[in-house]
Amino acid sequence: MRRADKMRTFWSWACALVLAAAASAQAPALPSWNDGDARTRIVEFVKAVTDSKSKDYVAPSDRIAVFDNDGTLWSEQPLYFQFVYMLDQLKAAAPKHPEWKDNAAFKALAAQDKAALAKLGEKPILELLGQAVGGMTVAEYDQSVRDWLASARHPKYNKPYTDLVYPAMQDLLAYLRANGFKTFIVSGGSVEFMRPWAEKAYGIPPEQVVGSQQEVTFEMKDGKPLLRRGAKFSFIDDGPGKPVGIYRQIGKRPIAAFGNSDGDLQMLQVTADGPGQRLMLLVHHDDDVREVAYDRQSHIGKLDKALDEATAKKWVVVSMKKDWKKVFAFEK
Amino acid sequence: MRRADKMRTFWSWACALVLAAAASAQAPALPSWNDGDARTRIVEFVKAVTDSKSKDYVAPSDRIAVFDNDGTLWSEQPLYFQFVYMLDQLKAAAPKHPEWKDNAAFKALAAQDKAALAKLGEKPILELLGQAVGGMTVAEYDQSVRDWLASARHPKYNKPYTDLVYPAMQDLLAYLRANGFKTFIVSGGSVEFMRPWAEKAYGIPPEQVVGSQQEVTFEMKDGKPLLRRGAKFSFIDDGPGKPVGIYRQIGKRPIAAFGNSDGDLQMLQVTADGPGQRLMLLVHHDDDVREVAYDRQSHIGKLDKALDEATAKKWVVVSMKKDWKKVFAFEK
Repeated sequence: MRRADKMRTFWSWACALVLAAAASAQAPALPSWNDGDARTRIVEFVKAVTDSKSKDYVAPSDRIAVFDNDGTLWSEQPLYFQFVYMLDQLKAAAPKHPEWKDNAAFKALAAQDKAALAKLGEKPILELLGQAVGGMTVAEYDQSVRDWLASARHPKYNKPYTDLVYPAMQDLLAYLRANGFKTFIVSGGSVEFMRPWAEKAYGIPPEQVVGSQQEVTFEMKDGKPLLRRGAKFSFIDDGPGKPVGIYRQIGKRPIAAFGNSDGDLQMLQVTADGPGQRLMLLVHHDDDVREVAYDRQSHIGKLDKALDEATAKKWVVVSMKKDWKKVFAFEK
Repeated sequence: MRRADKMRTFWSWACALVLAAAASAQAPALPSWNDGDARTRIVEFVKAVTDSKSKDYVAPSDRIAVFDNDGTLWSEQPLYFQFVYMLDQLKAAAPKHPEWKDNAAFKALAAQDKAALAKLGEKPILELLGQAVGGMTVAEYDQSVRDWLASARHPKYNKPYTDLVYPAMQDLLAYLRANGFKTFIVSGGSVEFMRPWAEKAYGIPPEQVVGSQQEVTFEMKDGKPLLRRGAKFSFIDDGPGKPVGIYRQIGKRPIAAFGNSDGDLQMLQVTADGPGQRLMLLVHHDDDVREVAYDRQSHIGKLDKALDEATAKKWVVVSMKKDWKKVFAFEK
């Protein structure tokens, strides 16, 4: 090894040691969580997989953690925020589509009829959205998402939707990364709807966002290359689609998975099925004062089968009411 | 900010400075490259985008570099190595598929008839492979790739195929990463064929491998979750598919792109179309002593239109003969 290489190796090594010491000794673990079973189990899991003397030690390159977005990292009531965006897009496009007045998905969206939306399922809704925004270039679509996020306000809190992220989950993301984890979003939402703000809100860069995808095609126009959106979704990253999305884009089995609804069940099952210690966690929306209490009967973020399985398999179930000091950062 | 946080921030900052200084001052840039225009232009580009005082400075999170695999990071002659693997799979599956004896793609593959394969295009070949390996679980398929790579030998060099990676490109990958770049493979090959060895060979983890994808579905079998491969490809990451693959999986425009054939042209065009300094580079196979000399007339890795565009737009064209000290690590 040349002298320059040796020096570099020395400094890299020294810095790695210093940073690891700083992270483990000085980082406050999960400051916005109350003491309790959930917090304890998260910390114990992280200690087990990061202690090189532990039988459950996992090398940093395999410390993959996956997070659902809607209802897990930010709120999803009274309607998935992407649906609200879609609704605004649909309203804007409606004059060009008189045929929509008889479309069941359009009517349910326009009325924000959650029972009807739940009954329809996501397919006709996504098809409608595809027609509304198909044909845009990806740059135009990205701008429309950014414009909407900058101007839209949540009906109850009168805040930008991105203010409705959960500080407790931001803490958890930071805590995992400080312990060598690579954190991914794996969401039923579209990648384009999350990528513009996920880095700032969660510290998750665009390449670590897995989500539903609309068809995109390459073309040359006036000597310039561009990507144009088609009218159809090519991939739905929800329910049984989540393990597929993880396989397609990450290519490794996660060792930790975080969700809040039945749409996350398969992702948690796949995570649980690997060797060694695993962390499967559900955020349970049980706080009707600071947010909305809902689970088995809800049309949005229904949590039923996954709650049974979490109970049977002793996965961590977080009580937002008891385990989190705050639900939203803007609370007094 | 609490004292512990302040300390941590200080150490992170001090270490970042030390590491940056170590990387820029002491890392030997591209030791396996000869002095020349290609090496100079790579180094000048990296200096421009990493110098915070440069008008072309790019923040680390946007330093995205994409690399084709076949013919760019490793060899592709006399036949794309994945085709050789596929051929072995097809031979093993042939007794169960008597109908293949009249299949044009099967006949061309079995005869290694490159002209016929080129004429057929990749679609019927991939369809055939889909039939051969469809139905396997992803774990079984992963194992079959690993087993093949461990036992197969290149017909000319009698070495494992993974020995046919190019040290000059390994140097380039390491050099870019030492300068804060995130490096991705964007290849027409299947993700499953590259992920098992790309981390060891190139320092590129599975989640940074973009490639062609076969359909995969989730199922529960005897209480265990698994992913099973379908018979069809859901995505072909070649030619105009490459910018789509980059959009789907990375979500950012690269600032540097490396290829060797017309299948990389659109990826280089999209990279070139962004603001500021950009690095577009083609590896030109002009060394008929150490490897194989081929370009415009070749059925494998045809380089024709992209060579014209590189010349017209002054992209970097690497002469393997003149610019690389070695083509393969095993050379004397």
